[in-house]
Amino acid sequence: MGLMVQKFGGSSLASPEKVLNAARRAVRESDVGSRIVMVCSAQGDMTDRLIALAGSIHPEPSEREMDMLKAVGEQMSIALMAIAIHKLGRQAISLTGPQAGIRTDSFYGKAKIKTIDTARVRRELEKGQIVIVAGFQGVDAEGNITTIGRGGSDPTAVALAAALGAERCDIFTDVDGVYTADPRIVPEARWIPHMDYDELLELASLGARVMQSRAVELAKRFGVPFRVRPSYSDAEGTLVSEISRELEYVDVRAAALDANQAKITIRHVPDQPGVAATIFSEIASSNVNVDMIVQTASEGGLADMSFTVGRDDLARGLAVSEELAARLGAARVDSDRKVAKVSVVGIGMRSHSGVAEKMFRALADEKINIQMISTSEIKISCVVDEERAADALRAVHQAFALDQGS
Amino acid sequence: MGLMVQKFGGSSLASPEKVLNAARRAVRESDVGSRIVMVCSAQGDMTDRLIALAGSIHPEPSEREMDMLKAVGEQMSIALMAIAIHKLGRQAISLTGPQAGIRTDSFYGKAKIKTIDTARVRRELEKGQIVIVAGFQGVDAEGNITTIGRGGSDPTAVALAAALGAERCDIFTDVDGVYTADPRIVPEARWIPHMDYDELLELASLGARVMQSRAVELAKRFGVPFRVRPSYSDAEGTLVSEISRELEYVDVRAAALDANQAKITIRHVPDQPGVAATIFSEIASSNVNVDMIVQTASEGGLADMSFTVGRDDLARGLAVSEELAARLGAARVDSDRKVAKVSVVGIGMRSHSGVAEKMFRALADEKINIQMISTSEIKISCVVDEERAADALRAVHQAFALDQGS
Repeated sequence: MGLMVQKFGGSSLASPEKVLNAARRAVRESDVGSRIVMVCSAQGDMTDRLIALAGSIHPEPSEREMDMLKAVGEQMSIALMAIAIHKLGRQAISLTGPQAGIRTDSFYGKAKIKTIDTARVRRELEKGQIVIVAGFQGVDAEGNITTIGRGGSDPTAVALAAALGAERCDIFTDVDGVYTADPRIVPEARWIPHMDYDELLELASLGARVMQSRAVELAKRFGVPFRVRPSYSDAEGTLVSEISRELEYVDVRAAALDANQAKITIRHVPDQPGVAATIFSEIASSNVNVDMIVQTASEGGLADMSFTVGRDDLARGLAVSEELAARLGAARVDSDRKVAKVSVVGIGMRSHSGVAEKMFRALADEKINIQMISTSEIKISCVVDEERAADALRAVHQAFALDQGS
Repeated sequence: MGLMVQKFGGSSLASPEKVLNAARRAVRESDVGSRIVMVCSAQGDMTDRLIALAGSIHPEPSEREMDMLKAVGEQMSIALMAIAIHKLGRQAISLTGPQAGIRTDSFYGKAKIKTIDTARVRRELEKGQIVIVAGFQGVDAEGNITTIGRGGSDPTAVALAAALGAERCDIFTDVDGVYTADPRIVPEARWIPHMDYDELLELASLGARVMQSRAVELAKRFGVPFRVRPSYSDAEGTLVSEISRELEYVDVRAAALDANQAKITIRHVPDQPGVAATIFSEIASSNVNVDMIVQTASEGGLADMSFTVGRDDLARGLAVSEELAARLGAARVDSDRKVAKVSVVGIGMRSHSGVAEKMFRALADEKINIQMISTSEIKISCVVDEERAADALRAVHQAFALDQGS
């Protein structure tokens, strides 16, 4: 008898009727013989409301107490889901993250799952229960409740699927699956039936916002195939698993746009060994996530150091940069809060050159200036002016004929 | 350094400002040298809202899942309280019932505390933390979350005070303390500075609604003196502890009225040995709480069996009674949903007769008919027509000169 993990996000649980719809899906799979583990997020905007509640008392509440507070969102969802499945006449039991044996480190607000003790979940499955686990949360070695970061119900689902040796893992969400580009910007974008973990990983880090990277990384590490599929229809969504390059070869699988970028440049940094390490370790330790980094060739012992950060991090990133510039004897700090990143992703480009040239050509033809470039084995990203970002995405999508199907 | 337990009820935590007020109280005691354990209920009407949420999915949700759901109310409160204390610049940590080591049996919705493992609480106190524990909840042997019934934060506070050997236990609430009668009905009612556990126990079971009986029972069993005091002022409230009869002698400490009563009478029950046991064990097993019981003397082998129940239980009580009447060959079942119970309470009456007569006389002088009478060592209760209940309370209050001070 197969075991299946089904994860439901907050928007799929936002009302009693939606909770019942999700319950019906689980019951349907259960009735055809699968054992079911459901993973539920907090309902709708519950987490945001809890954060606002804390904010009404303290502008910077402690991370530990925020985890204590936020964890109630999922706890509500799982209890309601169990009640909904009972309503449909089936057996179900809810388990919090700690009860489901999800052990994490103690980094409140962004804890990592260390191990899962599946004994309780298995025991309940053997009793014939549909087991409903709270996503997003776990317990540290001292018994404190932790949360594993935004989107943290996806990692919970994937980690549980791995620990339980599940046959399938369905991530129910409010999109039809993964597309070759955001259809709101590129109307001719196409649904992708199957893609590789690495491709989705790159897309996730590029602002495609289908799934958080951590869940995909976990799935890749443990070889858990999963499906990203809509909660509102029976569409099969996008299967994500390891793809053999020979069998399903494409240069570029999808294009992505991250409009939430800002650029910081520290000008004329005296170019000594270790200066980049100093800069970026200090920036990282102030909790600013740096994305792309470009260092100009040194001229007269002075180099420019440019990097992009999420727009929310710009103020903090600037403060640290100003402080660093003064300390290191750099000339000044410039910033641009209106940049965007356009990227193409595909495991096929590992073995094929010419992808970068095609992308640069497409942008040049549209007279879009490229401010920064960054490449990995399977992606190429260009930073452009935010005002031309949508044009850039459409141009690239067309250049790689993504509208023609893969 | 003394240890103090402070319990705050839902109405004392209903807004961010009230949470901060409660936090200030804890900080004030902490600053003069006490170690503080706070016990918090769910905010305002949170528990009722959670129950309504479940009701929108299933009319009769499972007790286990309701406990999972309701437990979030206190979890929110403790996190917010910790955040509020941090805001005041002091150290604090919140602990759920399970984290605080509160072990219960598995009777969901009305679990009983079995033991408290105080290791974690003590460890945090030693670190200088104000420790904030979720009331109302615990964990059973299998790791399930349980709740310990309505008003369940009071037992949590008292049990923690006992387990920790606390010097004081303050139950903050939305009343000034205990009064000789409900001041809304008897304007001349007086504040009681000090009373015995047994007196408050009787009052609690008589509808005085100051505190749930279970908390008082626990306090009595473990000899934990506590104070019922207002959260909105510095009034000292009512100290509840063991009172030596010689020192603080009074016949009657207070009078109470429970208007939420209904009466059921099973007429002409064939009077065989064991018939009362049959009737009341069946009624109890249908979860109807029977209060007073009167059996008339048998006439021709037939007796009338009258008893009172809470008004909410009347329909269920009647259904069981009808079924029993048919089975036992009784004549019929009568009921009256408009009765009330007036009572006087005082440990002094243990050694003094004449209290009952004085009460009956007071009611007779007001031409109030007594329908049922029940006495214990330290209380006398009379069931009267609901329409005369307030008159009855005032008459009794005056007859025992409760407005003159004790």
